[in-house]
Amino acid sequence: MSLAPFLSPESVAIVGASDNPDKIGGRPIRYLREFGFKGDVFPINPGRDTVQGLKAYASLADLPKVPDAVIIAVAGTGVVDTVNTCAALGVKAAIVMASGFGETGPEGKRIEAEMRETAHKAGMRIVGPNSQGLANFGTGAVLSFSTMFIEAQPEDGPVACISQSGAMSVVPYGMLRARGIGVRHCHATGNDSDVNVAELAAEVVQDPDVKLLLLYLESLPDPAALARTAAIAKERDVPIIAVKSGRTAAGSRAAQSHTGAIATEDRIVDAFFAKNGIWRAKGMRDLVRAAELYLKGWKPVGRRLAVISNSGATCVLAVDAAEHAGLEMAEFPPAIEDELRSILPGFASPRNPVDITAALLTDSGLFSRVLPAAGRDTSVDMFLVGIPVSGKGYDFPRFAADTGAFLKDGGKPVVLAAPQASVREAFAREGVPVFETEDDAVEAMTQFVNHRALMARSRPGAPAAARPPAPLEGLDENRSLQLIAAAGVTVARHRLCTTLDAARSFLEDAPGKIVLKACSAAIPHKSEHGLVRLNIDSEEALASAYADLVAGVERLGQPFEGLLACDQVKGERELVIGGYHDPVFGPAVVIGDGGITVEAMPDNVLLLSPFDEAEVMDALQTLRIAPLFRGVRGQPPLDAGAVARAAIAVGKLLCDETADVRSVDVNPLIVSASGAIAVDALVEVAATATARAAAQ
Amino acid sequence: MSLAPFLSPESVAIVGASDNPDKIGGRPIRYLREFGFKGDVFPINPGRDTVQGLKAYASLADLPKVPDAVIIAVAGTGVVDTVNTCAALGVKAAIVMASGFGETGPEGKRIEAEMRETAHKAGMRIVGPNSQGLANFGTGAVLSFSTMFIEAQPEDGPVACISQSGAMSVVPYGMLRARGIGVRHCHATGNDSDVNVAELAAEVVQDPDVKLLLLYLESLPDPAALARTAAIAKERDVPIIAVKSGRTAAGSRAAQSHTGAIATEDRIVDAFFAKNGIWRAKGMRDLVRAAELYLKGWKPVGRRLAVISNSGATCVLAVDAAEHAGLEMAEFPPAIEDELRSILPGFASPRNPVDITAALLTDSGLFSRVLPAAGRDTSVDMFLVGIPVSGKGYDFPRFAADTGAFLKDGGKPVVLAAPQASVREAFAREGVPVFETEDDAVEAMTQFVNHRALMARSRPGAPAAARPPAPLEGLDENRSLQLIAAAGVTVARHRLCTTLDAARSFLEDAPGKIVLKACSAAIPHKSEHGLVRLNIDSEEALASAYADLVAGVERLGQPFEGLLACDQVKGERELVIGGYHDPVFGPAVVIGDGGITVEAMPDNVLLLSPFDEAEVMDALQTLRIAPLFRGVRGQPPLDAGAVARAAIAVGKLLCDETADVRSVDVNPLIVSASGAIAVDALVEVAATATARAAAQ
Repeated sequence: MSLAPFLSPESVAIVGASDNPDKIGGRPIRYLREFGFKGDVFPINPGRDTVQGLKAYASLADLPKVPDAVIIAVAGTGVVDTVNTCAALGVKAAIVMASGFGETGPEGKRIEAEMRETAHKAGMRIVGPNSQGLANFGTGAVLSFSTMFIEAQPEDGPVACISQSGAMSVVPYGMLRARGIGVRHCHATGNDSDVNVAELAAEVVQDPDVKLLLLYLESLPDPAALARTAAIAKERDVPIIAVKSGRTAAGSRAAQSHTGAIATEDRIVDAFFAKNGIWRAKGMRDLVRAAELYLKGWKPVGRRLAVISNSGATCVLAVDAAEHAGLEMAEFPPAIEDELRSILPGFASPRNPVDITAALLTDSGLFSRVLPAAGRDTSVDMFLVGIPVSGKGYDFPRFAADTGAFLKDGGKPVVLAAPQASVREAFAREGVPVFETEDDAVEAMTQFVNHRALMARSRPGAPAAARPPAPLEGLDENRSLQLIAAAGVTVARHRLCTTLDAARSFLEDAPGKIVLKACSAAIPHKSEHGLVRLNIDSEEALASAYADLVAGVERLGQPFEGLLACDQVKGERELVIGGYHDPVFGPAVVIGDGGITVEAMPDNVLLLSPFDEAEVMDALQTLRIAPLFRGVRGQPPLDAGAVARAAIAVGKLLCDETADVRSVDVNPLIVSASGAIAVDALVEVAATATARAAAQ
Repeated sequence: MSLAPFLSPESVAIVGASDNPDKIGGRPIRYLREFGFKGDVFPINPGRDTVQGLKAYASLADLPKVPDAVIIAVAGTGVVDTVNTCAALGVKAAIVMASGFGETGPEGKRIEAEMRETAHKAGMRIVGPNSQGLANFGTGAVLSFSTMFIEAQPEDGPVACISQSGAMSVVPYGMLRARGIGVRHCHATGNDSDVNVAELAAEVVQDPDVKLLLLYLESLPDPAALARTAAIAKERDVPIIAVKSGRTAAGSRAAQSHTGAIATEDRIVDAFFAKNGIWRAKGMRDLVRAAELYLKGWKPVGRRLAVISNSGATCVLAVDAAEHAGLEMAEFPPAIEDELRSILPGFASPRNPVDITAALLTDSGLFSRVLPAAGRDTSVDMFLVGIPVSGKGYDFPRFAADTGAFLKDGGKPVVLAAPQASVREAFAREGVPVFETEDDAVEAMTQFVNHRALMARSRPGAPAAARPPAPLEGLDENRSLQLIAAAGVTVARHRLCTTLDAARSFLEDAPGKIVLKACSAAIPHKSEHGLVRLNIDSEEALASAYADLVAGVERLGQPFEGLLACDQVKGERELVIGGYHDPVFGPAVVIGDGGITVEAMPDNVLLLSPFDEAEVMDALQTLRIAPLFRGVRGQPPLDAGAVARAAIAVGKLLCDETADVRSVDVNPLIVSASGAIAVDALVEVAATATARAAAQ
């Protein structure tokens, strides 16, 4: 069932139509007429002959034809009745604006489900309830009651804003319009009871005129649809920037009380967005900040910045901001420096940052010569022009025109930082993205180049299917090690011993010392119970340890299931690998530094399964302990490849539906210059799977 | 020599006066006449009878009286001549605008020094050269050629902007004026050849109408004057916010090429500012962002925020932003919740964040009741009101008036976040600080409360006198340990042994194993030469180690000065304490995590000496390893007090002028649950001090 009738209907009826163009049932009629909608508009109002000058109808059944789309601007029980009528008539798209449904509790959710069922049976789709409506300024189908389209005059353009929240659909709209940027789509999906925000995004991103997609999400109701959106966006080279709010613990609680959104570990959202090439904005400011840069269609090849200003102080501030944000300062080769030297006055520096000095007052054409000269340098990826003050003597229209001409001639990306509005306006008119301060400009550029790089390496894909909740059963260490070994994790040589003789024979074969530990699913925290003996290198020590541990298990009142003998492994660093199933995103693997500070001083990274070795290697580079993988103080580098392979194996194990492993805890994974060996593990499986395996 | 003649002269002469009010020599005359200067203005121009309608004089000598201040708007050799004339006549204040002096090299610096000497002999002070001038809108003494006072109409007000750079004196001026904030002082000191930026700040901060001081610094020419400024500011409760540019390595290089500023380790600047209660802004945006909050005179007692919005999404975003920035969400007690419940519609939440919902459309008075109710709660320190959309039906003037009335009635701090300019304007008119987004509002509030807290605990003070450079001499480990022990650092029991017998006797007294190491100032990196033996617990091992080490020293071609025997100390963590003399700020002590990753994964904090135990304890809490001082996984907490005492002792040693210690490296300091023991140290002293000590 296509969503086209929502975005490009040929006819629209408004149930609850108001003659007052400032009421909820009146505003969509006003908008449809003002913003160029070409199709039929049918007000439904049993009490009036006309509504806002249009012929009004008493009911949907009275219409001369079945409308493609119906705006349901009534409340209460009228909503369900109208949905039923729409479905019966063959309407394709219904937008329910009223609140008071799923967001209020189970009864509201039940009604939503009923309406959805009714609609689907009839081939109809529903947006809402609790939707502010949809607005497509390309077709004039503005089926929305937002007041913002009066406050900020619409102009069709390359941006699409899609949001669950009504307010956050029009906030970016307002901020973009204030900057003169055209917005085509401005949609609020509300409760997502049928059509959800991600499904609508997947439709909108196919609009060939959409060049930038902005999303506001409070929940992720449909990761698969979001991944589909990302895949289409990648194909079309449309950047997606998304706010997923509730990113902090307190924010997440606030979001739950606002929308009843299911909480998910926030960094899984980060991982999912990154995989899909979606840039995650922290808030509304970040969502729109770099819009002009994206819309230029620039494809920066690197992050090397050149700064040009008539103020040395601006140069210093821009360089500070760039280095802080992670941009690099381009280094001009001698030939470019020579050329700049020939252009600039003797006391100006031909190096980057280029301080063209007050000479700009006497030579207004400096930008027309400096930009192309520096632009020819292959070491420069983009420019920041800084003009801190304005006033008589500065020929801003000329500077702006020269900069604009450089851009139009295929020059490299240029942005302006200027605190004076008049300077910004002059440059904006010439198509140069403008910012108030060096920090703003640099932050926007950094986001832009980082996002373009993310888009280049992204591999959009839906998360693995989430497993239904199940009671969990922890396996004992022996079975845990066997499972992860079978999946491909290198584990320390070990043996479950139910007799001292068996343990003796293990010790005989050992290349060095061994460890002896209690082994029982009922005793997962064996260290805390003193049931681990290290450094065993003699039969006497073994016998004593064996007896101690058997007695210890007995003291805990647990049946004796054997002791696990294990080679004592040496290495340089203890890491941990954990894996679990997120209820929304499926298998996730966490790799991190280990030891006693694993919780107190966390240093780890999360990956969504499936992932490959290159992805783990990249992820390991984001850890604080990354230098250890390059070698520190003459020590050999830790074996990152071995860590990566272990993590991949854990991810694979979590994806294996037969084993139905629900969580894995490899702690520690002992890493050396050549290898990574698991010496302890705890695997939890769905209890049903255990039962099944046990029965086999 | 007071600086009053610069800020409130009774008469001003302009040498190089121009009839054209848009020239450098013309603009100050225009400004003095336009902006209410009440004193005499004397244009000096030998070629004209009048300048801009004022009687012109051929020379300073022709004036009817000696002017308090002279603006020197000529260039080249005319500058020195004019300075000489001013000094001879008894002028008190000269402002040199021309560039081409100290910033161009040694010859320029020499000329600056000559002018300064001439001036001081005559009791005159000089601002500049390379100064855009000074502007005091309180007295109308606008002795500046900045074009910005035409671009942005001045209005006297509570802010002072003082900068070395001309551009960065007027950039904050322009940004503040665009927000309607009045600025009294706007000064650019240029090359600081005589009056420097800090000295001028110390004068300006005494102006009783100045409530906020903004500084832009590219160098710190006079930390003592800055500390004096900070002390007066603390006394007067005037917040100081400063940009010190060149804060990154690349930025610092750029700053040096711009001003020739001496590079100093950037975090010393952080430490110095923090000690003096000065908030360090990253750039111009941060410098002015929270200005309105400071100017309200609010004294927040905590960081607990309440959020009120008609949009649930805005609530979520504000909470996200607050938690991210480090503010806390206030938790209303039941009585307040009950009261809010009685005010709000049934479906709205009386909890924080308070979503007052679309009920605001039908009840425009909600703010007038919600703010006072929540404001009575002692758990709330400040409010963020969020209004994401505007439009007909929302009575913004009423909301703004209600919020303003709450503030005027002594309510707690309130700021507004609203993307629509019209909403912001309504609230700004009522005296509410306004921001475009939740992020902006929260960042400003966070800076404000953090800065007020910093001001409360600051103890302004000049840095210790920097020592003149001297050749350094490294002491051997034995002398190094003795020096730090004498200063109060607990060191491991040790003895310099020149015979095996001496070492034997040390081992006999040892409570456990000992370490034997080569001891010679000529072999500072003994470990790298294999000249350290650990785990010695027998006479045999000792004899063998002794012989090996003696042979090893010989192999290096160094004279044998003895071996250092040392108790082998056990502990939980190896820390390091380093100390050195910064050429500007004097003794600095660095405390950090140790081990082989000390450089690769740095985790340390810098303190300027002198400091006390409480300061070190605070500083240790900023380390990544801070949890170790609270105890991790049942392990006892590391002894932070012992670390603090060791750091204080190192700081004290650096301050001791007799010893003239120039650097200290305690590595490692072995820290346990009860104590911190230095087991190795390297002290460098000024060679002269050694010579002196040796002679004694």
